[in-house]
This record gives sequence, structure tokens and C-alpha cells, in this order.
Amino acid sequence: MANRKYITYNEVHKLCQNAAPKILSEWKPSLMIAIGGGGYVPARILRSFLKTPGSPNIPIQAIGLSLYEKLATDGPEEAAGHTVTRTQWLDFSAVKQSDLVGRNILIVDEVDDTRTTLQYAVQELKKDVEEAAKLMGREGEETRFFVFVLHNKDKPKKGALPDDMMKEGRYLAAETVGDEWCCYPWEATNIDEHDRLANEAALKKVTAKPNGN
Amino acid sequence: MANRKYITYNEVHKLCQNAAPKILSEWKPSLMIAIGGGGYVPARILRSFLKTPGSPNIPIQAIGLSLYEKLATDGPEEAAGHTVTRTQWLDFSAVKQSDLVGRNILIVDEVDDTRTTLQYAVQELKKDVEEAAKLMGREGEETRFFVFVLHNKDKPKKGALPDDMMKEGRYLAAETVGDEWCCYPWEATNIDEHDRLANEAALKKVTAKPNGN
Repeated sequence: MANRKYITYNEVHKLCQNAAPKILSEWKPSLMIAIGGGGYVPARILRSFLKTPGSPNIPIQAIGLSLYEKLATDGPEEAAGHTVTRTQWLDFSAVKQSDLVGRNILIVDEVDDTRTTLQYAVQELKKDVEEAAKLMGREGEETRFFVFVLHNKDKPKKGALPDDMMKEGRYLAAETVGDEWCCYPWEATNIDEHDRLANEAALKKVTAKPNGN
Repeated sequence: MANRKYITYNEVHKLCQNAAPKILSEWKPSLMIAIGGGGYVPARILRSFLKTPGSPNIPIQAIGLSLYEKLATDGPEEAAGHTVTRTQWLDFSAVKQSDLVGRNILIVDEVDDTRTTLQYAVQELKKDVEEAAKLMGREGEETRFFVFVLHNKDKPKKGALPDDMMKEGRYLAAETVGDEWCCYPWEATNIDEHDRLANEAALKKVTAKPNGN
């Protein structure tokens, strides 16, 4: 069974806070896209830290993506995989073409597990931007996508993000973890016990001696 | 200056958790609408507690509403008021008419301050539902809206919610507070200090004696 990693709200808060200066100074996003439900909390926190005095908040668009594991019984075993379903997408009555084309767009989610959802989000958003650019006659302009997640699981990925995104450092995971079960606080049925387990694990880490004594 | 009320993440979590049984057993919502950005966090937490074993999560649609205070300089003083701007609305490519008409729909926000945003949300959503009902030929069916907020400020309101909503108890504020400045944790620039101030206030409340000794 996978190890459980308990993450407190204040840890999530600090992971966002610590990532904000880099995002603000290097990435300069003008639009944030939160992948719900997991991206809602980090996106909302991040917005506070990306606010600069005298400027309005960076707008957030929430999108909803659900990952369904196709059962092997649906077809031959090789076909077993993942399908992503949209439950919500950008609202193009509020997001103008000019809000997308040539802009820096930050995609936020809580965890990069198999990377399937993130691949889907980037791919589909790219398509929308290309279409918008075509309509505006601004195909030459570069729109840059950035990804921020709280945790990246260091494991073989089923999905892929664009090569240039990875090469140009447009992907940031606040923490890289093993193939652990990330227990986020918003899923805790007992938040005090959740915090106790998180603190216990943190203490163990501090007191653990390399030689095992 | 208004008193500041510091709210910790774990308090927000528990306010949602404590409200969930009533919402689940009495309101039975089949769709949640989160008013962003403030509604993102409570909506995500609430979703965990509204999940029943064997059933999928209640879907969340995020909408974005911004409240702009019209400056008196924009016109005669009587015109000074509030306008609500939509930054995101329901995604009707994902939300079917049948997901709305005749259903129980739960609207979630963090705070009911002037009630202007909530009035706008309910009014506009009702219009969409009426239109959907007409298109489906199901005008006779009752669609019920419910509102959940973490905090209601006990103050004169500029907006109003439907009479029947209030009479039938389809409005729930986890806490009713005075006209205080609600400091939510996702806006804290120093979350440890924020928690300290919240705990300090909680201690004062416990130790305060009615006779002032």
C-alpha cells in the first residue's frame, strides 16, 4: 500500500506563498486557470500572493476535469487507459480572445499524478488559443502556458507536457514526492487528527538518524 | 475601524463539516455553484462532506462575480451603488438543462456582506433555469435554490434574497457575525501570525467574564 502523506492547510498555504515570487517575477501571468476541484484551493491562495498593490487581482477561470479510469472490461487490455471529461471550461463570454493570445497563462492544480489531466488541459487550451489567434489574425504571437502544482509524484507518467514547457522551466511543482498517497486537508474527515498525523510525520523526519539509531 | 475577525483554515473546514449533514439530509443538492474566488475553498471542502459512499461527487460549477463599488463621482449620489460583473458563468456545454430544471441547487460563497452578489447570483441563475424549463416544456417544475455561506454579517443589506428562500430555510450561514472584517486564511500574508491572532481572540472569548472581572 502506498505511503500516506498528510498535508495541512497551512503547508498548502506556504507552498503557494513560496512559489509566488518566482511566478510573479519570471512568469508574469495575466490569467490563472484552476483545474477543479483540486486546483480551487491553491489557485485561490495563489491569487492573494500574486496581487500587486495598485493592480487588480489576476482573474481566475475555473475549469472542471474528471479523470475516468477505463476499465479493462470495456475492451482489450491494451485499451485500458484514461479518459478526461470536461465538466466546465473557459467562459468565452467573459474571456476575450485578447485575454488569451500572446499572454502568459498559468494553469494550477493540486497534484501531478499520472499527468493525464494536465496534458489534456494544456492541449485543449492550446487549441483554443490557436483558434483565437487565427480569428484575430495574430497567429505569429507566442502564448505561453505555465503549470503550477503543489506536488509532483516522481513516477512514470501516462501523460506528457510540451517539451518546450519543461525545457524553458514553465513547470513548477512546489514539492516533488514519491508515489505516495497525497492526503489533502480538504478531504480530511477529521482535520485535527489529520494535522496530528502530518506533524508526527514531520517530527519523524527531523529526528530520523541516517544510521537508524 | 471595524473589528477584525481572524478565521483559520481548520475553522473553515469545521464550519463546512458541521453544515454538511443538514445540507445532505434536508437540501439534497444535485449541483453546487461556487461563487469565486471566495467560494472556491468552502465549496471544495463541502464537496468532501457531501459525498456519499457509492455515489459520485456532487458536481461543482464555478462562477466568477466581481463587485464594483460605483464611485459617487460617476454620477449623482443617489446612483452610487454596486454593480456586479460576471467573470465566469455556468458552462452550458457541460451543464444540461435537465441538470437544472426541477433540481436542488446549492450556491456557496464565503461571506454574505451586503448580499448584493448573492442576490445577483440567485436572480441570474433563476433566469437561466426558467429559460431551460421553457425550452424543455417543464415550466411547472420547481427548481429550488439554496445558499450556504461561512459567515453572514448582521447588518443592513443592500441586496435581497427571495422571500420563500428565507421563509423555507433555504439559507444557511455557518456563523452570524457583527459588521466585522472577516480575515480569511487564504488572504493571510503570514499564516502563523494569522492563526496566533485567531487563537488569541478565541482565548479572550473563553476567559471573558460577563461582569468584566
